[in-house]
Amino acid sequence: MKSGIFCVFLLVSFFLGDHGLFAQGHYTIVIHGGAGNVDRERVPADREAEFFARLNEALDAGEAILKAGGSSLDAVEAAVRILEDSPKFNAGRGAVFTYGGGNELDASIMCGREIAAGAVAGVTNVRNPISTARLVMENSPHVLLTGRGAEQFAAEQGVEIVDPSYFFDQYRFDQLQETLRRRQESGYLHPDAGMGTVGAVALDMHGNLAAATSTGGMTAKRYNRVGDSPIIGAGTYANNASCAVSATGHGEYFIKYAVAYDISARMLYKGAGLEEAAGSIIHGTLKDLNVSGGLVAVDRDGNVAMPFNTTGMFRGYARSDGERFVRIFAD
Amino acid sequence: MKSGIFCVFLLVSFFLGDHGLFAQGHYTIVIHGGAGNVDRERVPADREAEFFARLNEALDAGEAILKAGGSSLDAVEAAVRILEDSPKFNAGRGAVFTYGGGNELDASIMCGREIAAGAVAGVTNVRNPISTARLVMENSPHVLLTGRGAEQFAAEQGVEIVDPSYFFDQYRFDQLQETLRRRQESGYLHPDAGMGTVGAVALDMHGNLAAATSTGGMTAKRYNRVGDSPIIGAGTYANNASCAVSATGHGEYFIKYAVAYDISARMLYKGAGLEEAAGSIIHGTLKDLNVSGGLVAVDRDGNVAMPFNTTGMFRGYARSDGERFVRIFAD
Repeated sequence: MKSGIFCVFLLVSFFLGDHGLFAQGHYTIVIHGGAGNVDRERVPADREAEFFARLNEALDAGEAILKAGGSSLDAVEAAVRILEDSPKFNAGRGAVFTYGGGNELDASIMCGREIAAGAVAGVTNVRNPISTARLVMENSPHVLLTGRGAEQFAAEQGVEIVDPSYFFDQYRFDQLQETLRRRQESGYLHPDAGMGTVGAVALDMHGNLAAATSTGGMTAKRYNRVGDSPIIGAGTYANNASCAVSATGHGEYFIKYAVAYDISARMLYKGAGLEEAAGSIIHGTLKDLNVSGGLVAVDRDGNVAMPFNTTGMFRGYARSDGERFVRIFAD
Repeated sequence: MKSGIFCVFLLVSFFLGDHGLFAQGHYTIVIHGGAGNVDRERVPADREAEFFARLNEALDAGEAILKAGGSSLDAVEAAVRILEDSPKFNAGRGAVFTYGGGNELDASIMCGREIAAGAVAGVTNVRNPISTARLVMENSPHVLLTGRGAEQFAAEQGVEIVDPSYFFDQYRFDQLQETLRRRQESGYLHPDAGMGTVGAVALDMHGNLAAATSTGGMTAKRYNRVGDSPIIGAGTYANNASCAVSATGHGEYFIKYAVAYDISARMLYKGAGLEEAAGSIIHGTLKDLNVSGGLVAVDRDGNVAMPFNTTGMFRGYARSDGERFVRIFAD
């Protein structure tokens, strides 16, 4: 009898302790590779297949960690690194070009258990900005480091530094030339010019949520413009009490409407569900303003939301029940 | 009879139209010059008088605009410029020094009527960062510009560029030497080392809310660290539907808890009052984490909140009913 009570105690400790009240050994990872208005007919089948392969590879990397009982933080970092390394997406290698013909990378990461976060903005020689963002979170007392200072921090932390030419991609360079040709007198740009931001959110078997986002920003951006991706509360947010969010779209609006934090706030203060909270901002507020974008989110129960108000969003998820989903277009 | 109905129509249009539902020609401006743990005995009377004079001067500048029917946006910019120009506060002239012995300035401004915002981070030669933040909002499609790019934008916009030595203040320089002497091996710093961020929020006679914040950040900051002041949703937020907020304190936590936006969210989603919403984060969430700071806020009815969890916060407000309040300590 006594040992029976002890077993119940152990079991209760297990579920209420490190492992969270709502986690029973299941996991979920959701990723995105940007939202945009893409004409289905303009995407050839082999190019589509290549996108699917990269999205699946990112899901594989994250899922392997979660399946082995690893942390959501490790999983989102691993998934985003795969997408940063692929020239198909506007993050890391293959980032869009600035007005001056360079690449300036932004990334952020957040741990929902500790409400800890790290971010870098405007780095030009760090192979995987998302991993430097994580080092800012773990090895500095700061949240956001920028430009040369962030690069110096990255070098001191021993991350892989590359020659800026590593980020070069002919398709993106042609995109810059095209954008510059079409640009208006002012030198500014079309909001869709940054399509391809990447991100991941995950719930691990211990009930912990994490979110990560990485981007090259907007084609032909100037004046060291920083968008929503490295801004905690705008492009990225995670809180074990609510959800984890990674966004993509016209960054300026995602900052002004604090999109990622807003979803968490609607859940905590209004009792909204994840789908409702995420949908109201993407299909409501932003759609009404004619602002394009989307996001991926997961809540502490493993529910998934992937709303977007464009024709397509590279997206997918993998779950402990074996379900795997990867799509580009709305259907 | 007919003209009577017409008069009622005109009157209703006046109150519901440009002038907002809750604005009846009254205005409020609230300012701060930073929160911190200051020993009352250590502040000599003449130094205290100097602080009072500068706070009153900032209130005068903002109030003159509001009294003449001007916009809250003009009022908060004018008030913050006065505080930036005073070496007494950690913003503009008199900003704290970085680890490298320079000054890196951050500022942001937000218009609650249009949900428009602008910000600069890490500028070193712009006399009034708050005015450049406003130009980012009004003359660029962006929200946040950083470093050299932000300086180039400022120069192109024709704002006053100064030699970086303009920001030098002996007291702040001595503070850096003291901080460096006491710093730990890691080179990092005490969270209180940035006391003196300035900000203003206002409600104008047309029912429009605005917020502005400006800072030099933390003494001995490194790696181009950016705090909450230039981050919309963290250090600054304004929405005509809820409130305007300008914060001061340990910036990293104000980012992670999206403090300024959180107050607006609690009002919109929970129906919380301004005092309750502002108090829960400063005296609740942040106090529980041992994080020091404060904020000033005003809602669309002209209610004022000025919570801080330190021994003092330079603060004050002026209202259309003639009330004027300026204080440093808690009493």
